[in-house]
Amino acid sequence: MHLADASSEQLKAFAESLEKQYSELKAENLNLDLTRGKPSSDQLDLSNGLDSILAGDFSNQSNTDVRNYGGLDGLPEAKALFAQMIDCPAEDVVIGGNASLSLMYFSVMFALHVGFGELGAPWAAKGEKIKFICPVPGYDRHFSICEQFNIEMIPVAMNNDGPDMDEVERLIAADASIRGIWCVPRFSNPSGIVYSEATVSRIAKLANIAGENFRVFWDNAYAVHSIDENAAALSSISAAAKAAGTEDSIYQFGSTSKITFAGAGVAFVAMSAANRKAFTKAMGIFTIGPDKVNQLRHVRFLKDLDGINALMKKHAALLKPRFDIVLDSLARELQDSTQESSSNAGEYGEWTAPEGGYFISFDSQPGLAKTIVGMASELGVKLTPAGATFPYGNDPKDQNIRIAPSVPSLDEISKAMEVFVCCVKLATVRQKLTS
Amino acid sequence: MHLADASSEQLKAFAESLEKQYSELKAENLNLDLTRGKPSSDQLDLSNGLDSILAGDFSNQSNTDVRNYGGLDGLPEAKALFAQMIDCPAEDVVIGGNASLSLMYFSVMFALHVGFGELGAPWAAKGEKIKFICPVPGYDRHFSICEQFNIEMIPVAMNNDGPDMDEVERLIAADASIRGIWCVPRFSNPSGIVYSEATVSRIAKLANIAGENFRVFWDNAYAVHSIDENAAALSSISAAAKAAGTEDSIYQFGSTSKITFAGAGVAFVAMSAANRKAFTKAMGIFTIGPDKVNQLRHVRFLKDLDGINALMKKHAALLKPRFDIVLDSLARELQDSTQESSSNAGEYGEWTAPEGGYFISFDSQPGLAKTIVGMASELGVKLTPAGATFPYGNDPKDQNIRIAPSVPSLDEISKAMEVFVCCVKLATVRQKLTS
Repeated sequence: MHLADASSEQLKAFAESLEKQYSELKAENLNLDLTRGKPSSDQLDLSNGLDSILAGDFSNQSNTDVRNYGGLDGLPEAKALFAQMIDCPAEDVVIGGNASLSLMYFSVMFALHVGFGELGAPWAAKGEKIKFICPVPGYDRHFSICEQFNIEMIPVAMNNDGPDMDEVERLIAADASIRGIWCVPRFSNPSGIVYSEATVSRIAKLANIAGENFRVFWDNAYAVHSIDENAAALSSISAAAKAAGTEDSIYQFGSTSKITFAGAGVAFVAMSAANRKAFTKAMGIFTIGPDKVNQLRHVRFLKDLDGINALMKKHAALLKPRFDIVLDSLARELQDSTQESSSNAGEYGEWTAPEGGYFISFDSQPGLAKTIVGMASELGVKLTPAGATFPYGNDPKDQNIRIAPSVPSLDEISKAMEVFVCCVKLATVRQKLTS
Repeated sequence: MHLADASSEQLKAFAESLEKQYSELKAENLNLDLTRGKPSSDQLDLSNGLDSILAGDFSNQSNTDVRNYGGLDGLPEAKALFAQMIDCPAEDVVIGGNASLSLMYFSVMFALHVGFGELGAPWAAKGEKIKFICPVPGYDRHFSICEQFNIEMIPVAMNNDGPDMDEVERLIAADASIRGIWCVPRFSNPSGIVYSEATVSRIAKLANIAGENFRVFWDNAYAVHSIDENAAALSSISAAAKAAGTEDSIYQFGSTSKITFAGAGVAFVAMSAANRKAFTKAMGIFTIGPDKVNQLRHVRFLKDLDGINALMKKHAALLKPRFDIVLDSLARELQDSTQESSSNAGEYGEWTAPEGGYFISFDSQPGLAKTIVGMASELGVKLTPAGATFPYGNDPKDQNIRIAPSVPSLDEISKAMEVFVCCVKLATVRQKLTS
């Protein structure tokens, strides 16, 4: 049945049957969780060898005692390893602790309150309001950093090839107080799209039209996190920035959080020599140096990019069936039969079918996301709060819902999706009936 | 010979013999280092078991998977362990990464720019100049944090029982813009003294006479780091603050950096419930959580306070002979035979004989510290730059020199001290001759 063609009677009958299903699901007293983009225990098991790999040998290739203080910017072999991962020069890499989020937070704080050394004064030096471009839907923890430091966030729509660059360029050219943009360029959180080469190139050129010391916060969190082995590649922003003469405007972030242990991995940031000078000086006041023992564990365990890719294939083998259940359920239950099978859209909304990352992004009919998340919660299925993927928690159309299927078992995901599509359908039919 | 009684001829002859010794030492082309307060490889070896202790078992007492994300404030058993170490309530403890320095930096940044939640606005909210009391000589990395954030540092003299509290109280009562004080209360860096119970009590009461949201930055870096088994204990600042009703004014810091692996330990901060509320909220924007795998390693390896103390005795056995060489050399070569043997003073200067920690502090005759450090450097013995133990690198009397004997071998320390006392004597005699 097409909702558009259905009579009021037909819609009422459909709502009744959905309400019956809803009640039956409620009686199951479910307790399922599709909220968190974190690895499952099976995925973590893939890296258990990490913990014992040093076997009493704490010396690295340059005979540093990794147990002791020092090594502010990281072990050379760790830099080389992670540079391969994000396709940048090894000397650009500065190794951090276990969280790229902390490096991002520190970088924003540094830009705002410490300043760029030879490259210029801190953004906040004159007390002016600082603004960031935030492609939406996006990663809530990026937005929280901006809120922490009173940076005004300007949402810009995400397309299938990255942010709406016409709008980004227009905004930045018109307002010099816009000093940053958040990007998750491959398998974007939550839509899963990969920025096209043209988008990467345009982002690299933003500094040429922006205010002083504009910075691209390039959170390459899912650089090697393909689920589909033919997933789209990401072109190198280092290369694009070099071509545009804007190397100083790029901060690239990455980590092994979703490669080895989510809470005990190694994070890093890559930036130009001129940036590193002031950044590592500030970092040297923040810490004597990050955990080199854990860096060495990672170097010995992952070895090189081939080692990383081999491990990521094992992750994909665990993740793909989970994503398939979600996507199959959405296609089977919500796709409009009049449309092409690859459209991922129908009368109930549209969704992404990512080739990697941790999320599927679902857009309901406008005005229904909060309702759907609330209904699912009533049936015992936790979803990320509606609005969380937007600055200030405000999704103006109230339609984006992030689905994170990595942790539950296949059976749990099937059941959770049964709940999800029931809630989507019921909410949509009710909306039709009252509109 | 007493310099005070010596004739000009005698002093000249003495200077000549010292210059001969100086030349002979220079010909040895030494390369020795007494600069860094870090553990030796032998000390690090004491904790090698840390790395393999998990043996594939990643579950903690509450069956958290420590490999995954989460656990912002740390594992309960880690909190309990470190609370014993610094004598505070376990619930006050928030676990961080590998560096207490980072927690201190974050705490200052938080106080200045983020604010205390219910307890009040950030210090910098109104743009006023913020000042800290800095007992001197002190720890250069504390001073660097203040410099980073443009906090004005007011030096106050250290006595044998802690900072000159009359002066501290007078300054704080007179100037509400003084919002913090740095303290290394046990085996102070560099003097090695332990704050008396009376000093601890007076510091706990400072908030009662200070401006809004005054904070004591209590860096208990050497809480369990006795060299002498009868070393003076430190009374609990938690207890003293509770008695004074000033719990919210105390931030306590500690780490295992000089217990297990200097670069791969676990750091922590302890603060009141009201402080933790805003602090952990800000921390939750900075990180998803610290490395719990490493916390679990430490809990399994150290077990409890008895385990820590047993390990610290092994450290002391390695450190004590090194400290003894320095102190014997100073007493034999520089102590005034007319004074009591315990005075640690003479015509060439005075020094501390600490019962723990990592440093011996030497005060030369005024105006000679830079000269002595420069001379030692010419002979191949690196010393911490003169002035480093003072805010802005400025020792107004140019007399404090920090000696850190933990890393070199016993023979190297003997040789380095031969150089040191030769330089001290020669610089002092030359000063006498030209004054």
